[in-house]
Amino acid sequence: MTQYSVGVDLGGTNITIALVDAKGNIKNKVKISTQIDKDAGFVIKTIIENIKLIIKDVSVKKLMGIGIGAAGQIDHENGVIQFSPNLHWRNVHIVKEIRSKFKLPVAIDNDANVACYGEFMFGAGQGANNVICVTLGTGVGGGIIIDRKIYRGVNGSAGEIGHITVESNGRRCNCGNRGCMEAYVGAPHIKERAIEKIKSGRHSIIVKLVNGSLNKITPKRLEEAALYRDKLALEIWQETGFYLGTGLASLINILNPEKIIIGGGVANAGKLIFDPLLKTIKERALPVSWQDTKIVRAKLGEDAGVIGAAMLVKYS
Amino acid sequence: MTQYSVGVDLGGTNITIALVDAKGNIKNKVKISTQIDKDAGFVIKTIIENIKLIIKDVSVKKLMGIGIGAAGQIDHENGVIQFSPNLHWRNVHIVKEIRSKFKLPVAIDNDANVACYGEFMFGAGQGANNVICVTLGTGVGGGIIIDRKIYRGVNGSAGEIGHITVESNGRRCNCGNRGCMEAYVGAPHIKERAIEKIKSGRHSIIVKLVNGSLNKITPKRLEEAALYRDKLALEIWQETGFYLGTGLASLINILNPEKIIIGGGVANAGKLIFDPLLKTIKERALPVSWQDTKIVRAKLGEDAGVIGAAMLVKYS
Repeated sequence: MTQYSVGVDLGGTNITIALVDAKGNIKNKVKISTQIDKDAGFVIKTIIENIKLIIKDVSVKKLMGIGIGAAGQIDHENGVIQFSPNLHWRNVHIVKEIRSKFKLPVAIDNDANVACYGEFMFGAGQGANNVICVTLGTGVGGGIIIDRKIYRGVNGSAGEIGHITVESNGRRCNCGNRGCMEAYVGAPHIKERAIEKIKSGRHSIIVKLVNGSLNKITPKRLEEAALYRDKLALEIWQETGFYLGTGLASLINILNPEKIIIGGGVANAGKLIFDPLLKTIKERALPVSWQDTKIVRAKLGEDAGVIGAAMLVKYS
Repeated sequence: MTQYSVGVDLGGTNITIALVDAKGNIKNKVKISTQIDKDAGFVIKTIIENIKLIIKDVSVKKLMGIGIGAAGQIDHENGVIQFSPNLHWRNVHIVKEIRSKFKLPVAIDNDANVACYGEFMFGAGQGANNVICVTLGTGVGGGIIIDRKIYRGVNGSAGEIGHITVESNGRRCNCGNRGCMEAYVGAPHIKERAIEKIKSGRHSIIVKLVNGSLNKITPKRLEEAALYRDKLALEIWQETGFYLGTGLASLINILNPEKIIIGGGVANAGKLIFDPLLKTIKERALPVSWQDTKIVRAKLGEDAGVIGAAMLVKYS
C-alpha cells in the first residue's frame, strides 16, 4: 500500500502544501499567499482547509501524518512557533491546533532544517550520513544532518551558518554583529558591495543594465554583467565566492562533513561563485578535513521544504 | 563487582597509562617518557609491558578492555594510527598488536576526542548531551560530543576548532592558512604578539620579568605581568579573549551547543582571558544561539585523556 504524508512549507510570503509519497514524490501541491495581515488563527484555518482539499481523495489509512516547516524559532518538541519575524507570530501552538482537526501525527521544524532534510532524504544528500545545507538567498541559511537526523542543538537554533564570522571587524550584518559571512554573501549585501564600488567611481556595464537605477542591481543582473566579462561584476563574484569559501572552510574544519549542499537563488550564479568558493576551501581548510567532503548543488529547488516537512512525521 | 578498564594516553612526550573504574576513578597510574627515537614496535612493547604491570592485581573477569588516545590522525574503526606528526608514525596498527596480547576489547581515538569524552563522562560535561571541548595550549584543540557520542566526521578529523578563521587575511597559522583562531590564541602566537608589541617600542614590565630575553616570554609570564596591571600584558589577554570569543561565537552559531568546556594551560589565565571571551561571545553570537550555552572550565586536567580513553571500550 502506497503511503502518503502532507508537507506544509509556511513562509512569510507563501504557503505551499503538498501530498508526498514515501519515496519523496509530490502527488499534489497547492501554493497560496500568506495573509500576514490576518492573525495566526486565520492563517492556520486556511492551512487546515487546504490540507483537507489536498487529502480528500486519499483514505485515512494511507495517511501517515502532517509535517510543517516554518520560518523562525521553533520549539520542535512542543510543536510551537516561538517567534517568527516573517509571520509576526509569537508562541503559536500550531501543531496542537492542526492535530486536533486531523487525528494524525503532526510535527514541525524550522524551514532551513526541513529543506535540508528533504535534500538529505531525496535530493543531493541521498546516501550520506552527515550533511550540511547552505541556502544562499536574502540571508544565508543552514541546516545540519548528523547521523541521518536533523541536528538542532540545545534549543533548536543550530545551523546559523550565515553568521560565521569571516572578518572580526568587517561589514555590519543584520544580526548586529560585524563580519558575518552573510554580510558579504547575502543578496542585499552583494548588491550593496556592487553599489559601493560603482559609487567609488568604478566603471561597469551594470549601470546600463539597470538603466542607471543602482537600486535595481540584483545578483541576477550581476550574473548578466559577468557574461559580458564586466570586470566589476567578475570581482564581486570572486569576492562572494571567497567569503563563502572562508566561512565554509571554518565549517569543514569543525565538522568534517560528508557533503555540503548549496542551494538558493544566489547559487544560480554557478561557476561564477563555485569556482572561487572551491579554490578558497582548498586554500584555507586543512587538507585532511576537506579531502573527503563533497560540495554539491541542491537538487530539489523550492520543493525541498514541502518534501522534507512531509518526511518529518515519518522519520523524526 | 567493580569493573575496570585501562586508559592509555599516548603523546609525543609522555605516555600515561591508568587503571580506571566504571565511575571514572583512577585506581593506578604510571607516566613514562615516549622514546620517539625508537620505532613504533618498541614503543608499543613498552606500552604492553606497562599495561601488564598496571593490571597485575586485577582478575581478567573484572577487566572490560583497553582504550587509547593518541595524538594525530586516527582510523578509529580499524584501530590504526594513520599519521602522527608528534610520534613520527605512519599507518601503525596499534589496536591489533595490543589486542593480540590481552584478548580484551581495544579501541583508539585521537587525544582531543578522548580528553573531551573524559570531561563529558566524568568532568565538566556531566549530564549534557552535546558538548564541545576547547584545549588552549601550543595549539588550540577541540573535541565534539553530539548525542552523547564522540562526533568524528566523515574521516575522523572533525573538531579542528583552532582552525576557525577569525580574520580572512590575518596572521599566518602553522597550518598554512591565514587568520585562524590558533594564530592568535595558541601559546607561541600569544608570545609572538607580545614580542611584536615590545619591538614596536611599547613599554612593558614583561621585559624585566624575562631579564630582557624576549624569547622567554610565555603565557605564564604574561599572567604575572597582568598582575602588575601591565598595560601591554592586559592588552594581549584582552585580544586573546577577543579572538577566542570570535571563533567560539561562530561555533555557537553553527552548533548551538549545551556546553563549551575550556581547558589547557593557557586557560589558567582565568579571568584575564575569560572576561573578554564571554563579553565577545555575547556581542557576536546570536542571542538565541548562546542564551542556553554554558561556558565552563575543564575539571579533570591532564587526567581527562586517560579517563576518556578508558571509557572508549565501555561505551563506544
